[in-house]
Amino acid sequence: MTTDIAIAQRAKMLRIGQVAQRFDIDEEYMEPYGYYKAKISLEFLETLKDRPNGKLILVTAINPTPAGEGKTTTTIGLGDALNRIGKKSMICLREPSMGPVFGMKGGAAGGGYAQVVPMEDINLHFTGDISAVSLANNLLAALIDNHIHHGNELGIDARRIVWKRVVDMNDRALRDVTVGLGGPGNGFPRSDGFDIAVASEVMAIFCLATGLEDLKDRLGRIVIGYTRDLRPVLASDLKAHGAMAALLKDAIKPNMVQTLENNPAFIHGGPFANIATGTNSVIATSAALKLSDYVVTEAGFGADLGAEKFVDIVCRKSGFKPDCAVVVATVRALKYHGGVELPDLNQENLSALEKGIANLERHVNNIRNHYGLPCIVAINHFTLDTDAEIKLLQDKMATQGAPVVVSRHWAEGGKGGEELAHAVINMVETTPSNFKFVYEENDSLWNKMTAIATKLYGARDIMADSRVRAQIRKLEDDGYGSYPICVAKTQYSFSTDPALRGAPTGHSVAIRDVQLAAGAEFIVMVCGDAIMTMPGLPRVPSSNMIDVDSEGRIVGLF
Amino acid sequence: MTTDIAIAQRAKMLRIGQVAQRFDIDEEYMEPYGYYKAKISLEFLETLKDRPNGKLILVTAINPTPAGEGKTTTTIGLGDALNRIGKKSMICLREPSMGPVFGMKGGAAGGGYAQVVPMEDINLHFTGDISAVSLANNLLAALIDNHIHHGNELGIDARRIVWKRVVDMNDRALRDVTVGLGGPGNGFPRSDGFDIAVASEVMAIFCLATGLEDLKDRLGRIVIGYTRDLRPVLASDLKAHGAMAALLKDAIKPNMVQTLENNPAFIHGGPFANIATGTNSVIATSAALKLSDYVVTEAGFGADLGAEKFVDIVCRKSGFKPDCAVVVATVRALKYHGGVELPDLNQENLSALEKGIANLERHVNNIRNHYGLPCIVAINHFTLDTDAEIKLLQDKMATQGAPVVVSRHWAEGGKGGEELAHAVINMVETTPSNFKFVYEENDSLWNKMTAIATKLYGARDIMADSRVRAQIRKLEDDGYGSYPICVAKTQYSFSTDPALRGAPTGHSVAIRDVQLAAGAEFIVMVCGDAIMTMPGLPRVPSSNMIDVDSEGRIVGLF
Repeated sequence: MTTDIAIAQRAKMLRIGQVAQRFDIDEEYMEPYGYYKAKISLEFLETLKDRPNGKLILVTAINPTPAGEGKTTTTIGLGDALNRIGKKSMICLREPSMGPVFGMKGGAAGGGYAQVVPMEDINLHFTGDISAVSLANNLLAALIDNHIHHGNELGIDARRIVWKRVVDMNDRALRDVTVGLGGPGNGFPRSDGFDIAVASEVMAIFCLATGLEDLKDRLGRIVIGYTRDLRPVLASDLKAHGAMAALLKDAIKPNMVQTLENNPAFIHGGPFANIATGTNSVIATSAALKLSDYVVTEAGFGADLGAEKFVDIVCRKSGFKPDCAVVVATVRALKYHGGVELPDLNQENLSALEKGIANLERHVNNIRNHYGLPCIVAINHFTLDTDAEIKLLQDKMATQGAPVVVSRHWAEGGKGGEELAHAVINMVETTPSNFKFVYEENDSLWNKMTAIATKLYGARDIMADSRVRAQIRKLEDDGYGSYPICVAKTQYSFSTDPALRGAPTGHSVAIRDVQLAAGAEFIVMVCGDAIMTMPGLPRVPSSNMIDVDSEGRIVGLF
Repeated sequence: MTTDIAIAQRAKMLRIGQVAQRFDIDEEYMEPYGYYKAKISLEFLETLKDRPNGKLILVTAINPTPAGEGKTTTTIGLGDALNRIGKKSMICLREPSMGPVFGMKGGAAGGGYAQVVPMEDINLHFTGDISAVSLANNLLAALIDNHIHHGNELGIDARRIVWKRVVDMNDRALRDVTVGLGGPGNGFPRSDGFDIAVASEVMAIFCLATGLEDLKDRLGRIVIGYTRDLRPVLASDLKAHGAMAALLKDAIKPNMVQTLENNPAFIHGGPFANIATGTNSVIATSAALKLSDYVVTEAGFGADLGAEKFVDIVCRKSGFKPDCAVVVATVRALKYHGGVELPDLNQENLSALEKGIANLERHVNNIRNHYGLPCIVAINHFTLDTDAEIKLLQDKMATQGAPVVVSRHWAEGGKGGEELAHAVINMVETTPSNFKFVYEENDSLWNKMTAIATKLYGARDIMADSRVRAQIRKLEDDGYGSYPICVAKTQYSFSTDPALRGAPTGHSVAIRDVQLAAGAEFIVMVCGDAIMTMPGLPRVPSSNMIDVDSEGRIVGLF
């Protein structure tokens, strides 16, 4: 089998200026980063303001399984296919974090013949955006301890600092640390921890900001911790936000690259999909909507998590209104949801498939009824899928109002995604979106979470201990009650139990912890197990295989 | 007074491709980073191999004082002046670390009318090289703790790990930390610490490497710590060096920017001047030597530290042979060396000046006799310098064989540096360099350090306690005896006492500690006080003033 990197390195890339030309972006507004990457100037985006928006297609998925679904490849393949059949289309993706690249998951630039290139650059610190986010995050952290060291005029309670440092690396040894040791010259010792950079609130803000001024305002509103009498201390109290924004002034410009078929792709912003929104930047999607007739973007994890956040956080703030959702599933993953274990997924199993389809059905139902979006199911085709399995899937879903299309973009690129593209166009042209939110801004925080859990997850109710209930009340008292909820729970199940596959009902969703993201303007509700914001490396990390030859060619990156 | 940033922002920059064109660098070999920065491909540099080298001018200085000397502005001003009078010239500088930018020192892109631009970009993570160095450093750190967590097959002694993590930030709270807390899932607790990124051995290696293969080999030879029985553990034992090199594959290409007068400048690599070499990358200087008739580069700190390392480490490894040295001094700084305190430096004081000239004299003597280089003294002109002071300086130095030239590049740009440029050309054309090292490769480590201290510093001898002597012996036993010495001592004095100004003699240089940099191929000898490899922020950090306006223009950066 040809590896992704081998396919990517054989790509006939165009100079990025040529790619952009087809979309009438003048070379003057492109800030090149090498020959095949460019940032688009904010000044140019400003000139697009009065143009009408193109159609917005949201790619989402069933609950992820170890079998893999291929949401990113579907996004890329659909974009390529739309361009092939004459629709001016752009795709919008997240920037890969390096933690997974060196850890287990590998790269995140698509796969097979549905990739964005140069894949090595995209996977290996790209245009430096995540580094800029890390630096802005860590500048604020340094300013906090520095302020305390020099007298602590603001009265920050060192036990109540919530701002962590970050690195873009899977480094479990940094999860829980003590800093400030070694004597008076090194500040005051305190408990601290590091997150992976993409879990930083700076990244969440970066992806929701509509421009530099909004970015700076949001950075200033970050709550870094509390005083002894529980008053919040803001980044603006430390005069940190101006310098943080200065560090992000280039990063905030969307990055353009190309697909293997030379169609433009914005890859910009990469927030963690659990404690943040898990979608690319609002600035990039806004730009794409002005520049093309169809924009294909993806949300993180399954439609219960990523798509819900796209709807209730991103769209609410940005004014985006998706025109259609594409739910990605595979026959293999549905069999897994039906109870088949990984080693047996290659065998036809119609009864397990039928059972597993319940997961897909609930997502389709949520998207159509609770998000109000027309919906298409994209079956990302694997060689071993049998005709009987495909037929069963199509028959079962026929009653759900969502056409099922088998897509072969992984093996065939845009050509393999043409049927999906036609289905999308047909849906958008015939079925108007009735886009709506899952809850209203004015609902209480408790009721917002209840709406998500009962409407989408099939839960009976939500619950929380008195400490968490008090936290929620304090947030409302402090004036944060109108913020949307950002759910942090396992992506593997509609419930909070990762082992519960399919479409569980009647379960209870326990809120374990509540966190304020005042700059990003949402409330994180951690449900079920604690959410890991600093992954670890496996026994044999991918970095062992990654290398560069004397010509500068990267090898061993998957 | 017009600020540096105001002057920089008024610059009429050319597109970087136009700047390079004059030096026959084809656009095809330039990887642009925006319009005004570019990386030059290694492939292109390979094609230059057989060209003759231009002349190499090393800019160095007297021992630094709080009055400021202006080595970087002199380097830039001299480069501009050489171009003005018809010599094809390039300058090579270090990349600024962000620690000082947000801390106290401010930017490092020159000043007045002798600057490199775009100064905001150069000072604020530029083309991402330092971030790439940080990531490579921290990948190795994560792999060390990960290896121990998963069974520690190599038998790394957690008490004897010498590899630290880094951030490009002044963050004193990270100097001394405990990592791996929080239970078995987070690894084994141990003492650790962070350095500022530019103090990383990865940066030192980056600046000494001659290409990607050499870079990777050197990264593999890094000693990360020791086993219980004191066997060194290498980065290659952890299979880290391939992925580290992959992370640096773009960073390693030299960055080209321009001066205010549109002359090309390489700004590449920024190693700490105490625990590393303090000069820009060998790759950049090599490239400049092939592309131009005159290359002006600067070494860190005074000629006792930075120039010595340039001679004994950089030139020894790279084969560079400087043709002339320029020693930068100011009348003010020399008065300070003569005993005048900061508030009184604006007053004429001939006797203090005469006394302080001793510092300059010793540097000139060292350069001429111990480095074997023709030497010119550049007096960086300040408005309040009196004619009598200048005349005294010129008369005193007349006997030293080093012409004294007053240079006005700060106020007048290249025009103000023309006299200096003519003096340099005259020197190079009439006085052949008799370049030599301060010690030989085969000397013992002890004798190498003795040579530096007695020949250059005016010291009577060197000393060390038995622990340090044992360390030195072990390094020689382990086969590292042929490495050059990288002295880490105060930059403010020829001695190890920062308060001892002028030209002290008869002092003893105490070696406090010895560190191996096996990848960079030198032995750090820490003399006198411990060397701070993680600075702190001041009470009122510069970051308080740094901001970005809605047009993306940086303000408050000095």
